[in-house]
Amino acid sequence: MSNFTPLDFQMMSRAIQLAKRGIYTTAPNPNVGCVIVQTDGQIVGEGFHAKAGEPHAEVHAMRMAGDKAKGATAYVTLEPCSHYGRTPPCAEGLIKAQVSKVICAMQDPNPKVAGRGIKMLRDAGIEVEIGLLEQDALDLNPAFIKRMQTGMPFVQLKMAASLDGQTALENGQSQWITSPEARRDVQNYRAKSGAVLSTSQTVIEDNASLNVRWAELPSSIKAHYAEDELRQPIRVILDRQNQLRPELKLFQTPTSVLRVAEASADIKVATTDAGQLDLHDLMRQLPANHIDHIWVEAGATLAKSLIEEQLVDELILYLAPKLMGSDGRGLMGALGLTSMSDVIDLEIKDVRQVGVDIRIVAKPVFRN
Amino acid sequence: MSNFTPLDFQMMSRAIQLAKRGIYTTAPNPNVGCVIVQTDGQIVGEGFHAKAGEPHAEVHAMRMAGDKAKGATAYVTLEPCSHYGRTPPCAEGLIKAQVSKVICAMQDPNPKVAGRGIKMLRDAGIEVEIGLLEQDALDLNPAFIKRMQTGMPFVQLKMAASLDGQTALENGQSQWITSPEARRDVQNYRAKSGAVLSTSQTVIEDNASLNVRWAELPSSIKAHYAEDELRQPIRVILDRQNQLRPELKLFQTPTSVLRVAEASADIKVATTDAGQLDLHDLMRQLPANHIDHIWVEAGATLAKSLIEEQLVDELILYLAPKLMGSDGRGLMGALGLTSMSDVIDLEIKDVRQVGVDIRIVAKPVFRN
Repeated sequence: MSNFTPLDFQMMSRAIQLAKRGIYTTAPNPNVGCVIVQTDGQIVGEGFHAKAGEPHAEVHAMRMAGDKAKGATAYVTLEPCSHYGRTPPCAEGLIKAQVSKVICAMQDPNPKVAGRGIKMLRDAGIEVEIGLLEQDALDLNPAFIKRMQTGMPFVQLKMAASLDGQTALENGQSQWITSPEARRDVQNYRAKSGAVLSTSQTVIEDNASLNVRWAELPSSIKAHYAEDELRQPIRVILDRQNQLRPELKLFQTPTSVLRVAEASADIKVATTDAGQLDLHDLMRQLPANHIDHIWVEAGATLAKSLIEEQLVDELILYLAPKLMGSDGRGLMGALGLTSMSDVIDLEIKDVRQVGVDIRIVAKPVFRN
Repeated sequence: MSNFTPLDFQMMSRAIQLAKRGIYTTAPNPNVGCVIVQTDGQIVGEGFHAKAGEPHAEVHAMRMAGDKAKGATAYVTLEPCSHYGRTPPCAEGLIKAQVSKVICAMQDPNPKVAGRGIKMLRDAGIEVEIGLLEQDALDLNPAFIKRMQTGMPFVQLKMAASLDGQTALENGQSQWITSPEARRDVQNYRAKSGAVLSTSQTVIEDNASLNVRWAELPSSIKAHYAEDELRQPIRVILDRQNQLRPELKLFQTPTSVLRVAEASADIKVATTDAGQLDLHDLMRQLPANHIDHIWVEAGATLAKSLIEEQLVDELILYLAPKLMGSDGRGLMGALGLTSMSDVIDLEIKDVRQVGVDIRIVAKPVFRN
């Protein structure tokens, strides 16, 4: 392990903060930040990747640094790219700019190209170090990394219940279980995701648009973006029975809706032996549609299927400070478990209060 | 409102910390701390109330201060007492010690005597101020204050469930839902309470002793007490069918067990129109048995009754990071609610992780 200095930590931390500015816009590209620092410790260039098709973080930083990049150290949150895409490879740019050292938080997650950018830099005589604040860099791009490593999208499942795990009373009443603050928090999650996955049943019951409403976004987003720059998530709707009608609010917003069914649909998926839409097949197809980050808002049936199919990366559970009684409608639906060794284990990633509600972020630990 | 100085806050805060040392031993007396400070800002005496029958906090502090109490300011977390009990009134002691000023965090919560100690001090020419860090002082003695103000005990209801609100699978399996850390946390709550309330069904099913196990207590308790100083909670067991047998573990520990039934019991309670033990009647009788702080560990049936009867002051809910499915056994039992306006609202007081579990402390907000 390299001995990183306090200055190294400070600068990579800044690069990670910069990368976060792209969190609502870069998909399907990764969030990347770059800071170029001269030997006297002065920042001479910095930048972040904002949007697919626009310059990479390193390019922004090098443009700002100009001649001052020569002999400097570049801090990049991700290994510089080595391939000719819409832009020339950043590794080549850093070589031309004559930086003397590059510190990367992490290697490229794509196993096919990982290490190539680093090799290109080292072959040119540039000192390269890897792994500074690596976990923070990994957390920047869960969806990009999962897609690169597995070809599958990153799936976040949103659920909401009372403190005793109920989503509605026995008669179905459920309005306003969670607070306005929790609903705003959901808007933020939607804004970060590439697509919202739901079912025609949920869409029709709530006449839900499942889009991002600018007015409800936190000011931290609004400070960095104009309303018309905001990326709206694609709505991916399971609709086997072809129940979606054009008069629904869903279609009153400009972003696209992808209908999922086994035939005559935007995304055609196989059916399982049990006669259900094959959710694995759906997930495998989404990256080809430029979607790698899915935010699921649906009822207990889809939630249960996704959990049982081990397709959930993160559960985001809002618990309202209420008791509704166990005769209500349960959060998960019946799992039919007969042994405690079969229960689904979770790893709690975060617990906090959002308004009067409690928000729990947990990662299912599937044991196969 | 008085203008308290930074020194005042510092000294009252110290008095509150001192008071907390008695938290496992003073019941049914309140936790009280006292700090005596000379005009130069030096602490000349301090103390806390440790146990009923032993000196009050002020007496310890005055003994330590001796002549140096003269002209000093006494910080007391509770209004000094004005009555002759097992000890002479502390207000009189402070007058004799010739302190020049007394600052109390709160008045005596007993409406019959509130203000008398303050008046006694003022009549003797001592300056008195009230209300410094009052909320912290209120939090020191929830049970004592509730008993003084209402004649009823303070009731904490412990529950544990999976994240989706299940306490067991459909077949009853439930072992080790919560972590060792959560179980140790329960020991701490038991140690703070005057009595553990349960049912013969729970006691028999788990062969539970419901006592405090020294080895499982946090080191913060063990640092201040010897094992033999530890107060064991009285076990109060609802046992209408007279099912408790002497061979149960419950009876293998020295602390007393109080059987509750409508006849031939340690505590005889009325029955309701529905033929159940009247829990209000039970609660009304407990303070007469020197119990004002109840920790409830039982099943969904008693939990539900206590909630429905509005007898719960605090719900302590441990959520294990597991999903069990809505076909398990629910946390609350059926409440039979038909309108969202009838759900039981809670005010969240605290949320934190205890080991891998989440602990939520919430106050039911009953609307009648």
